[in-house]
Amino acid sequence: MLLKNKINSIKSILGNSKVLTSREELYCYAQDSTNLRENCVLPDCVVYVETIEEVQEILKFANKNKIPVVSRGAGTNMVAACTCPSGGIILNFSRMNKILDFNPINMTMRVQPGVVLKDIKELALEEGLFYPPDPSNYKVSTIGGSIAQSSSGARALKYGTTKDYILSLKVVLADGTLVKLGADTIKDAVGYHLNQLIVGSEGTLAVVVEADLKLIPKPETRQVITAYFESIQDSIIASTSILKSKILPSTIDFMDNNSIRTVEEFSCVGLDVTKEALLIIELDGFISSMEYQIETVLNILQNNNAKDIQVAKEENEIEKIWGSRRASFAATTRLAPDVVSDDIIVPRENLVKLVLGCKNICNENNLQVCIVGHIGDGNIHPQIALDLDDDNQFKQYLDAKSRMYDLAINLGGTISAEHGVGKEKISYLDATLDINSIKLMKQIKKIFDPNNILNPGKVFK
Amino acid sequence: MLLKNKINSIKSILGNSKVLTSREELYCYAQDSTNLRENCVLPDCVVYVETIEEVQEILKFANKNKIPVVSRGAGTNMVAACTCPSGGIILNFSRMNKILDFNPINMTMRVQPGVVLKDIKELALEEGLFYPPDPSNYKVSTIGGSIAQSSSGARALKYGTTKDYILSLKVVLADGTLVKLGADTIKDAVGYHLNQLIVGSEGTLAVVVEADLKLIPKPETRQVITAYFESIQDSIIASTSILKSKILPSTIDFMDNNSIRTVEEFSCVGLDVTKEALLIIELDGFISSMEYQIETVLNILQNNNAKDIQVAKEENEIEKIWGSRRASFAATTRLAPDVVSDDIIVPRENLVKLVLGCKNICNENNLQVCIVGHIGDGNIHPQIALDLDDDNQFKQYLDAKSRMYDLAINLGGTISAEHGVGKEKISYLDATLDINSIKLMKQIKKIFDPNNILNPGKVFK
Repeated sequence: MLLKNKINSIKSILGNSKVLTSREELYCYAQDSTNLRENCVLPDCVVYVETIEEVQEILKFANKNKIPVVSRGAGTNMVAACTCPSGGIILNFSRMNKILDFNPINMTMRVQPGVVLKDIKELALEEGLFYPPDPSNYKVSTIGGSIAQSSSGARALKYGTTKDYILSLKVVLADGTLVKLGADTIKDAVGYHLNQLIVGSEGTLAVVVEADLKLIPKPETRQVITAYFESIQDSIIASTSILKSKILPSTIDFMDNNSIRTVEEFSCVGLDVTKEALLIIELDGFISSMEYQIETVLNILQNNNAKDIQVAKEENEIEKIWGSRRASFAATTRLAPDVVSDDIIVPRENLVKLVLGCKNICNENNLQVCIVGHIGDGNIHPQIALDLDDDNQFKQYLDAKSRMYDLAINLGGTISAEHGVGKEKISYLDATLDINSIKLMKQIKKIFDPNNILNPGKVFK
Repeated sequence: MLLKNKINSIKSILGNSKVLTSREELYCYAQDSTNLRENCVLPDCVVYVETIEEVQEILKFANKNKIPVVSRGAGTNMVAACTCPSGGIILNFSRMNKILDFNPINMTMRVQPGVVLKDIKELALEEGLFYPPDPSNYKVSTIGGSIAQSSSGARALKYGTTKDYILSLKVVLADGTLVKLGADTIKDAVGYHLNQLIVGSEGTLAVVVEADLKLIPKPETRQVITAYFESIQDSIIASTSILKSKILPSTIDFMDNNSIRTVEEFSCVGLDVTKEALLIIELDGFISSMEYQIETVLNILQNNNAKDIQVAKEENEIEKIWGSRRASFAATTRLAPDVVSDDIIVPRENLVKLVLGCKNICNENNLQVCIVGHIGDGNIHPQIALDLDDDNQFKQYLDAKSRMYDLAINLGGTISAEHGVGKEKISYLDATLDINSIKLMKQIKKIFDPNNILNPGKVFK
């Protein structure tokens, strides 16, 4: 716990009104969206930063006094990446939420880290432009968090992930130095790509205070096909067959029977609860290309045992479908007091084994699991509903989690596609990565943050 | 110069037949495609590596004895990135040219560094798949060089650059340690993206010995529009207007009057040598979308003072157009004994100022320049024809180069978009990058290569 004089120094840097210290206030920052009790730790204080200079001042002070600093946007992280290790300062970026520049000719946008993804998307759209990354929580989550966690979402299949839309970054190092990384141009081959090193580093290397984003022209239209299957295997084979047809949907998303049933009970949208799997396939592009794309995909679905295939062409229908899919996490929370949403990925050819394997593992451990995922990418989110206060269930959960990670790794995959490692997956890192690559990461961390004040205890031990 | 016993040790590691030491043989490796005399340095030996283990053994030996090691594919580099600093070992990767795995379901390919890009593209195409990066020299250049230099090519506008198609890498560190970086999956959020750090590091951090590439479905068709303009400004405004129309061409390429005239004299393809600028616009996608795309672009061109607009629909016509464009470097070599091709980029809105400024600078310095470029990206290649043995011309050239870089930087751009820094641009680095980012790069270099044996004297001093 920080001594009172340290807190006072922080207050003198920022002014009293920007520093939260009461227990009630701090409690709101003890957790992010990671639903595990063990991750609950109160920070010593939460500071509202409003300028780059304030971030620099706070980091200088924290570095000198070896106080942990954790950056936080909307706190939607799923791997306890934006909670404190044991006290420390939370940098709250919710007031650094300005879009500093939007240049439709360059197709770029300069943003502060606290800008919500939805605002970026909406402003881009005013000029017919598109910021593709769309994590399920994009209506509340921030670009700073997206950069930290290398997040993506349903459209990664066609449009890639956050890293593909980051041009230059302004970051503050642990010692308070402001550094610009990368160039503001669409391409850049000058020196090491340190901006790409920051993407996905979960706030452990530097604090991002400004980002230049690349935008692309918005596709003219989109349509969504939904199709049910009697078996998970059939649905995955259908997904693979679509990709073989030279059609690249913006999304091929998946819900298993448990997810379908849970969402239907929650939102009564008319899903067929008798089916084993539902595919949600979004196609986009020029209006003139849609008939061909839709026909091709419909043919493939029909030849792959799909049932009750429907095409949504109107935006309100499409949003309703995505609303159901995005509701799956919230819906799952009705099954039990807690839900833990995981994030694993394998090469596409091993998806059937991964999905069936995860179901099997959860069954064996008497855990309810709803599996959704971006199966076009090979990425699934097993959402496990349980009571974390039930010691036996918690033990079963830990065992299942570990077995699911082993399975993903044995199938050539990895333990996170878009959520990150955080504190939550840290003990599985050695089994996932080449041990020598972890050594390199730790050495790089030391360069950027020799006193280990930036989000300590995340990514690796 | 290496002592004979060192050369003998290298021969004992690899066998005599894999080690070149004669002056005649070494001379072929004294230069890459960078046409500057000052970069000519003979290596002490050239070794043909055939396995990962051989690369490891050579690096262990070199590291122990502090001998510089430079990796080399096809030697097509334009910034003297694959020449020796002063003696040293050239690792010749031309025998590590196997495609190790091609998985159409995963849409991935695993390749050795010496594989030529053309072979990757052709094999992908057999399954309807596409490896987009297409540097002008893709018919001879290798994936190892592409990764080292972060190269791209005409299609970056729509499809991004090499970094967007790199999944995992296997690299050998300076001390001979083999390390896998990144995951084989389409997305990966586990630990720092060290694979992305290697892309563009110009062989200074590690030696890439294997790469997993991401492929995408091949667009169904493509067509190419060519259009002439009476002014450079009109051509660039037309380019910007196309991008504003929600159409994203795979390429918007540019040739100025000098390039048009030079190529026409070289290849007699019927270019209109009276015009100030030529745009080459490639559109691709579904057949059903082409009419709309073509009509939209034609309208924009007509409204922006384009002359003699033509549409090429057949592959042989299209290849002829690209052949002419790609011939521009070769054609320019007929103007003078030497040609130096540069590579600068600015945000699109500043392109007119960049192109006119470069022409002006070259005029003032009495230098012939042919400007081509990927102007959709904001990237141009001023190709300066001169006699490098003429001291006065050479002085004028150095002055012009420096002024062009200053101009690019002042217009918010940078000194390389796709060629890299190498030895050639090293003295301009401080003026280009944030000094603190260079400091970080140097510290990272020390982690990977404490004895500075990997391509020393490249990227930074």
